[in-house]
Amino acid sequence: MKFEAYREAFPNAALARKLNGVLEIRLHTDGGKLLFNGHTHEQFVDLFHAVASDPDNRAVILTGTGDAFMDAISPEGFDFFSPQGYDKIFREGRKVLMNLLDIEAPMITALNGPVLLHSEYALLTDIVLATPQTVFQDKPHFDFGIVPGDGVNLLWPEVVGSIRGRYFILTRQVLDAQTAKDWGVVNEILPADKLLSRAHEIADDLAALPPLTARYTRIALTQRLRRIVDEGAGYGLALEGISAADVARAAPTA
Amino acid sequence: MKFEAYREAFPNAALARKLNGVLEIRLHTDGGKLLFNGHTHEQFVDLFHAVASDPDNRAVILTGTGDAFMDAISPEGFDFFSPQGYDKIFREGRKVLMNLLDIEAPMITALNGPVLLHSEYALLTDIVLATPQTVFQDKPHFDFGIVPGDGVNLLWPEVVGSIRGRYFILTRQVLDAQTAKDWGVVNEILPADKLLSRAHEIADDLAALPPLTARYTRIALTQRLRRIVDEGAGYGLALEGISAADVARAAPTA
Amino acid sequence: MKFEAYREAFPNAALARKLNGVLEIRLHTDGGKLLFNGHTHEQFVDLFHAVASDPDNRAVILTGTGDAFMDAISPEGFDFFSPQGYDKIFREGRKVLMNLLDIEAPMITALNGPVLLHSEYALLTDIVLATPQTVFQDKPHFDFGIVPGDGVNLLWPEVVGSIRGRYFILTRQVLDAQTAKDWGVVNEILPADKLLSRAHEIADDLAALPPLTARYTRIALTQRLRRIVDEGAGYGLALEGISAADVARAAPTA
Amino acid sequence: MKFEAYREAFPNAALARKLNGVLEIRLHTDGGKLLFNGHTHEQFVDLFHAVASDPDNRAVILTGTGDAFMDAISPEGFDFFSPQGYDKIFREGRKVLMNLLDIEAPMITALNGPVLLHSEYALLTDIVLATPQTVFQDKPHFDFGIVPGDGVNLLWPEVVGSIRGRYFILTRQVLDAQTAKDWGVVNEILPADKLLSRAHEIADDLAALPPLTARYTRIALTQRLRRIVDEGAGYGLALEGISAADVARAAPTA
Amino acid sequence: MKFEAYREAFPNAALARKLNGVLEIRLHTDGGKLLFNGHTHEQFVDLFHAVASDPDNRAVILTGTGDAFMDAISPEGFDFFSPQGYDKIFREGRKVLMNLLDIEAPMITALNGPVLLHSEYALLTDIVLATPQTVFQDKPHFDFGIVPGDGVNLLWPEVVGSIRGRYFILTRQVLDAQTAKDWGVVNEILPADKLLSRAHEIADDLAALPPLTARYTRIALTQRLRRIVDEGAGYGLALEGISAADVARAAPTA
Amino acid sequence: MKFEAYREAFPNAALARKLNGVLEIRLHTDGGKLLFNGHTHEQFVDLFHAVASDPDNRAVILTGTGDAFMDAISPEGFDFFSPQGYDKIFREGRKVLMNLLDIEAPMITALNGPVLLHSEYALLTDIVLATPQTVFQDKPHFDFGIVPGDGVNLLWPEVVGSIRGRYFILTRQVLDAQTAKDWGVVNEILPADKLLSRAHEIADDLAALPPLTARYTRIALTQRLRRIVDEGAGYGLALEGISAADVARAAPTA
Repeated sequence: MKFEAYREAFPNAALARKLNGVLEIRLHTDGGKLLFNGHTHEQFVDLFHAVASDPDNRAVILTGTGDAFMDAISPEGFDFFSPQGYDKIFREGRKVLMNLLDIEAPMITALNGPVLLHSEYALLTDIVLATPQTVFQDKPHFDFGIVPGDGVNLLWPEVVGSIRGRYFILTRQVLDAQTAKDWGVVNEILPADKLLSRAHEIADDLAALPPLTARYTRIALTQRLRRIVDEGAGYGLALEGISAADVARAAPTA
Repeated sequence: MKFEAYREAFPNAALARKLNGVLEIRLHTDGGKLLFNGHTHEQFVDLFHAVASDPDNRAVILTGTGDAFMDAISPEGFDFFSPQGYDKIFREGRKVLMNLLDIEAPMITALNGPVLLHSEYALLTDIVLATPQTVFQDKPHFDFGIVPGDGVNLLWPEVVGSIRGRYFILTRQVLDAQTAKDWGVVNEILPADKLLSRAHEIADDLAALPPLTARYTRIALTQRLRRIVDEGAGYGLALEGISAADVARAAPTA
Repeated sequence: MKFEAYREAFPNAALARKLNGVLEIRLHTDGGKLLFNGHTHEQFVDLFHAVASDPDNRAVILTGTGDAFMDAISPEGFDFFSPQGYDKIFREGRKVLMNLLDIEAPMITALNGPVLLHSEYALLTDIVLATPQTVFQDKPHFDFGIVPGDGVNLLWPEVVGSIRGRYFILTRQVLDAQTAKDWGVVNEILPADKLLSRAHEIADDLAALPPLTARYTRIALTQRLRRIVDEGAGYGLALEGISAADVARAAPTA
Repeated sequence: MKFEAYREAFPNAALARKLNGVLEIRLHTDGGKLLFNGHTHEQFVDLFHAVASDPDNRAVILTGTGDAFMDAISPEGFDFFSPQGYDKIFREGRKVLMNLLDIEAPMITALNGPVLLHSEYALLTDIVLATPQTVFQDKPHFDFGIVPGDGVNLLWPEVVGSIRGRYFILTRQVLDAQTAKDWGVVNEILPADKLLSRAHEIADDLAALPPLTARYTRIALTQRLRRIVDEGAGYGLALEGISAADVARAAPTA
Repeated sequence: MKFEAYREAFPNAALARKLNGVLEIRLHTDGGKLLFNGHTHEQFVDLFHAVASDPDNRAVILTGTGDAFMDAISPEGFDFFSPQGYDKIFREGRKVLMNLLDIEAPMITALNGPVLLHSEYALLTDIVLATPQTVFQDKPHFDFGIVPGDGVNLLWPEVVGSIRGRYFILTRQVLDAQTAKDWGVVNEILPADKLLSRAHEIADDLAALPPLTARYTRIALTQRLRRIVDEGAGYGLALEGISAADVARAAPTA
Repeated sequence: MKFEAYREAFPNAALARKLNGVLEIRLHTDGGKLLFNGHTHEQFVDLFHAVASDPDNRAVILTGTGDAFMDAISPEGFDFFSPQGYDKIFREGRKVLMNLLDIEAPMITALNGPVLLHSEYALLTDIVLATPQTVFQDKPHFDFGIVPGDGVNLLWPEVVGSIRGRYFILTRQVLDAQTAKDWGVVNEILPADKLLSRAHEIADDLAALPPLTARYTRIALTQRLRRIVDEGAGYGLALEGISAADVARAAPTA
């Protein structure tokens, strides 16, 4: 797929590509901080698919807008509580992670602030930069009373270690940027006004590699993650769906 | 299995369950510090099986008694040195780990002091709290001259990293609580008199989740550990058994 | 294979074995710092095979000579750029890692200085000691514009965590000894003049274990690494080879 | 567990053990053909657990009563249609297969007639004998409109090949005994009046092996099946549960 | 994706969907027998992606046109012999198999005649019907002197057994329909004029299942194939690419 | 390794290589039928290593001498009954299978008669030809009362299916050539006087492929077998060793 075919296709993702092939993906809602909802859940499946389909992307930066990377969720466009409604989430949830891994250009996440949901997106990219204000948490699942089975269950233990990862999920721990760096989730902490320029600096270096080299390096570095996701994401999401159905039944008026 | 059916069944485990479903398992010998021996090896297989069979357990705390979690071992009830004798250890050794993982309620280990053997029990639980006096070591295997193949060989590299984990086992390293926390084995260090109350605080939160949600979250977080244990524990224990047979032959009067 | 059959067989490896079975392997070029080239690439396959074939090796120390463990590479003896030439690298590259893992004696790497290539050798040993001057980097692959697919892609994420490992490779990060220790790559930092004596101290302890016990413990601790290497090394090396062929075509006079 | 402790414990399984340690398990309902329902689903979990816990079982024969091994299912005791109800099926469904595999004595299934549900039980045993009247089918899942996710999805492709196995499930194929033998599901076809005596003949031979040998051979032959079941059964059952919830919603008065 | 959005999008695939959701995909070139080339290699990646993206497909039939399913290949649109040219084949080759497996509707292949290349497409569908004239062979790889690494290396041993599968590939064996049926590759052999009607008969039955049930059954039946393909296809294709580069160098004027 | 360096190195293997690179390995004892013993067990490890190390081998034929491929075993050179003695068998047993798989030239076994032990050698080669007099059985393990854990436990279920494979091992089934062909163990049955010429005919075809192509095809076809062997052979052999130690203790005068 050529860049022109998808650059304007995503209402919640501003795409800009430099001549050297560095693509910046900035998530947003109406130009401001992203509000995650059922529509973005669906849209990001296609977004990552499009980016993965275009070998002209030589390095990819994923970032957010405003004072958070992703900290707000709206029920709009989601139906968690019927099997048919959840089926859409189930399909998209498995697909979005594999599509992210199908992007063969090296990926950098530039966290411009808190990430309280879908932190597994960042963990599937290769390099993570963060501002001092960035915190990590997996919040909405337990707030809604449902299983955090969308991939955070797989990737946090993989990245920070089994016991740290399970504690993080089970206690809804708020992980500040420095601790996240100490634990190996964040590679560099940068002031907000230096974040993107540093991301571009690294991306420019990667984009200067021979194109097959950069892409095949990402493949060689992520084969293990593909297996973890392909084997585990469906099961986790299925359990999440059953728990959501149970919550719905228990609710007075669901 | 109903709680009443097993609450008094285990001479070396005091079980108490609160109305909210939080089960506390306190290991002990005659009410004091646990002395691990062949009888407890067998008993804990059944203990974890019983706990796993009872869906009314909503969160589980595993702790010890006195000034150590587990630091003493007695040969009583063990026959390491004949194939038939070792067969019992082999069967129980594989089973105890899978039974621990069959417990679907989220699990917290509250380490009230040193754990010098079977530290893999703690590593299979989801959250590990420790007192400042807690130290970790894998001591008896090499003291007896046999292979540490009971699961510590699998779980230490998994939790703390491959090179740290192998060094820990091979050098009989004594790991203090703070280093263990820095390495991701321990989540929180607490004064001895706060240890259990903090464990209950976390357990109460987990027990307040919808029951399927708490249980399925543990499943989603431990599927990877099940594979590691099911694939590797038998082999490690078989090697341990052969090494024990060799030690027995070499000994003057074994 | 008996020690006499191979002790003098390797021009770039000085072998010395103590009566207790501790084997020291010192890599060198003409007695000084090793210059890695196509000939050593081939030679080390046979070196590790020989060491693995001799059960009289009770513990193995791998070290370098002079002020670096491995920091220089020469194109001599390598043909990266034709399929038939690369085939030799491909075969040797897969074999050298499995042969290292076939060594069943516990292994210690004593890093006497920088390791800028083939750091995966150290990561496959069980214990890593380093001097304060030691730094880690994966430098030549990207300097030559080719995929770092020789095993560093697999083992760095395994040992230091997924995001740290990918950053290390992708940014050609220079990792100093202290950071490497904080990340779990290095177990102990020692002054240069204490390095080998400490390695021997640890090795002597391991060699004092019953022989089956020491060997089977290494087996029990490395089964996971065997799978990672056997499954992933061929693919990574194949991708590296394709990238090298591409670089060769793009070069003006390759 | 000693035989006396469980021989009379299972209303739907008649247990008889010969002096040589050959255990015959005959499934039945009130002495006649088994009617599978929610109570047997639960009971067989405990049945296989008990048999697995007793090392005095040297070989195990599993058979049925009357003119079918298992061809009838009653909804009694099942709640497929609420999350909490299905949770019981989910737990038991995963457990029953692992408990079957935990039986370390070699196992023979003697199929006395059609097996239209839970044919995966037979496929987890080591040897399958059948009468000419035996047919295989996976019938109730699609009759009820739900996913055949209880293990038949995993084990039929494993035993008969991927395309035969998927066709068998998807078309509700009726497989006669001779075709099943041609496909490798059945080892021997025997007249009804010779079935059990032949099963005992084989079992007697196996029971005459040294006890560790017989048991460890079953372990060595089934390690692969343990992984298939442990990795896949939970996911399949979760999908089955979601499909059941969907069917329930679609039904006029569920 | 809605059917209207892609029904006319593929010049070499005629798509027709019945009201019950049964989709028939008929591969062709200008309405006649398919001539496989580099353009169809690319096109089928998108074809299977589109079909997978549309949950309104309830069952899918894949068939060919004229007297062969796929027996002719043209070099047009392929560049096997430069790294950059092969990179396109490498990317598409991995993607096309995963996209086929992403189709969650049950799939039936109706083989209207010989399949001499890409027989792995059929093996990834769930049910295979064939005419008496159908033969299987993997012909072009060895004819061109390159590695059959596109998935046939993985799927033939999986479906027909390890030794049969390796012989089939290595000897370019021609497998007639009856032998293929005896080996479990073909489920039913039908006269050419009954082939499609039988495929539709089976598909209609599957499409009559509740929609989640049919889709989740395919997921539950193919999880194992996803792992085989995701782990192995990249490596096989990389080896195929290196062998092609070697052939190109050896050729007089490549 | 060059052919000259190893052609005469193996007293029980006559090696002959044609100009086209087809290597014939004929196992024998003093020029007649092979008598397998502890010395051949050790020797074949080195034999397969040497053959694997020589890329000039373009295709390999493995055959026997006289009226059996391998049907006789002598205790000479084996010590099954002490841990140290068994350790040698354990090491060689794991190594011989991996060395066989390290041979990257396509391999053909020409079975000149019964194979009653180590039939897994044949199953690891790619093509199996047999005379009508050939039968398969796994006989000595159970005759000696020990676990058949040397790889037959892994490879028979892999090649012939799970239930056929387990029955074959457990009942010491004698499998005639025709049944073996029906089950997919044997590709072709040939009169004794045509066996080798047919093997050479196939080998000549394979040797005529471009050298990287032939070798990489074997790699692409056997990656799955490498994992099965590397993961499972050690465990099976360890269990076999424990069972042997038990048998030794039970024997009146062991």
